[in-house]
Amino acid sequence: MAGIDYPEEAKALIGELKKLPGVGPRSAERMAIWLLQSPKANPEDLARVVQRAGEEVGSCERCGFFASGSESECPVCSATGRDDRLLCVVEQATDVLPIERSGAYRGYYHCLGGKLSPLDGVGPEDLRIDGLLKRVRERSEMEVVLAVGSDVEGEATANYLMDVLGGEGCSVTRLAQGLPAGSALEYADELTLHRAFEGRK
Amino acid sequence: MAGIDYPEEAKALIGELKKLPGVGPRSAERMAIWLLQSPKANPEDLARVVQRAGEEVGSCERCGFFASGSESECPVCSATGRDDRLLCVVEQATDVLPIERSGAYRGYYHCLGGKLSPLDGVGPEDLRIDGLLKRVRERSEMEVVLAVGSDVEGEATANYLMDVLGGEGCSVTRLAQGLPAGSALEYADELTLHRAFEGRK
Repeated sequence: MAGIDYPEEAKALIGELKKLPGVGPRSAERMAIWLLQSPKANPEDLARVVQRAGEEVGSCERCGFFASGSESECPVCSATGRDDRLLCVVEQATDVLPIERSGAYRGYYHCLGGKLSPLDGVGPEDLRIDGLLKRVRERSEMEVVLAVGSDVEGEATANYLMDVLGGEGCSVTRLAQGLPAGSALEYADELTLHRAFEGRK
Repeated sequence: MAGIDYPEEAKALIGELKKLPGVGPRSAERMAIWLLQSPKANPEDLARVVQRAGEEVGSCERCGFFASGSESECPVCSATGRDDRLLCVVEQATDVLPIERSGAYRGYYHCLGGKLSPLDGVGPEDLRIDGLLKRVRERSEMEVVLAVGSDVEGEATANYLMDVLGGEGCSVTRLAQGLPAGSALEYADELTLHRAFEGRK
C-alpha cells in the first residue's frame, strides 16, 4: 500500500512557499492548505499578482529603487524639485519609503542592495558600490548621507563606504544615533545611551 | 510633488500575501521584496505552482482530504486493504498525514473542515457533519475515533459529536490524553497531569 501524501501540486506549492523569507515548513504547509481549502482564499489572484509583479517590477538602473514596467528610472530619480546635492545611501530599496514618509529628506537615494556581511558571504563586490562612486563623481559639492543600520553589519558597511568615499571630494555624513523618539531613558540600552551622550549637542 | 510609493504591481502583491495565514503587513512586504529583488527568487515558479495547485487540488467528496486532478476520491478513500469499520474524525485535512506517518491507524478518515468555535462564528452547520452521519449509517458495527485537538474548541467539537453520534449505533472513542512521549513529568502542566492520571491503566 503506497504511503498517503499530499497531491503533487500541493507539495510543489508548499515547496515554493517554503522559499519565502521567514517561512518554515510548517507555515508553508499552513499557507498552502489555506490557499487550497479556505473559502476566503483565491489562489488565482495570488498567482496573477505574483506573475505580474515579477514581470513588471524592476530595479531602477540608477539607484536600485523599484521601477515599474518599461521605465528604467524609478519615481525618485525621475522626480523634479529634489536636491541633487544630497544622496542618501540605504541598504535596501525598502528603506526608501520610511525615509520618504518621515519627510526629513528631499534628495536622491542609492540602494546598496544589502550590507557587508562576511559571514553570509556578502562582500563589497555584491553591493551597488561602483554605481555609487559613479554618481558621486558626476557632481561636485555633494553630501552623501549614510543611512545604514546601526547593527554590526551596518557599521561595517558605513566604515567601508567612508573609506571608499574619502578620496572623492564629497562630504560624508551618518544618521545620528541616540534615543528613539518617545522613549523613556530607562528603556535605552547601554550602547544607545553611550551614543546619545557622544552625539549630544 | 507626488508621494513616492511602491509600484502598483508590488502593492497588489503585498496585498495578496498579507491575506495568507500568519502573515502581517511587514512580513508581506519582506516576502514581496524578496520575490522581486532576490536573485534566488523565481516569481514565475511561485505563480505557476499556486495557479496549478488552485486548479488541480480539490477536496475528496467523501472525506474532505485532498483529491488531485479530476478524481473525486482521495488516495485514502480509494485505497484497498484499509479497515472499513474504523473511521477517524479529524479537524483538518492536514491532520491526516501525521496520523498516517505514525502508522498507528489503518482505517478511513473524515475531515470536519474545522472545529466548533462560536467566537469565530463556526457552528455545526459549517462543519462536514452531515457527511459524517451519512457514512456512519452506511455501515454497522463501526468505531468512530474522535481525533480532534485537546484545546477548548476541540473538546467542544468532540462533545457535540458524541451527542450527535450517540443514537447512531456506532461506538465512539477519543484519543487518549496524557504525557507526550519523551517528556519529563516536571514539564507537564496541571491539566495534562490530571488527564494522565484519569486515563491511567
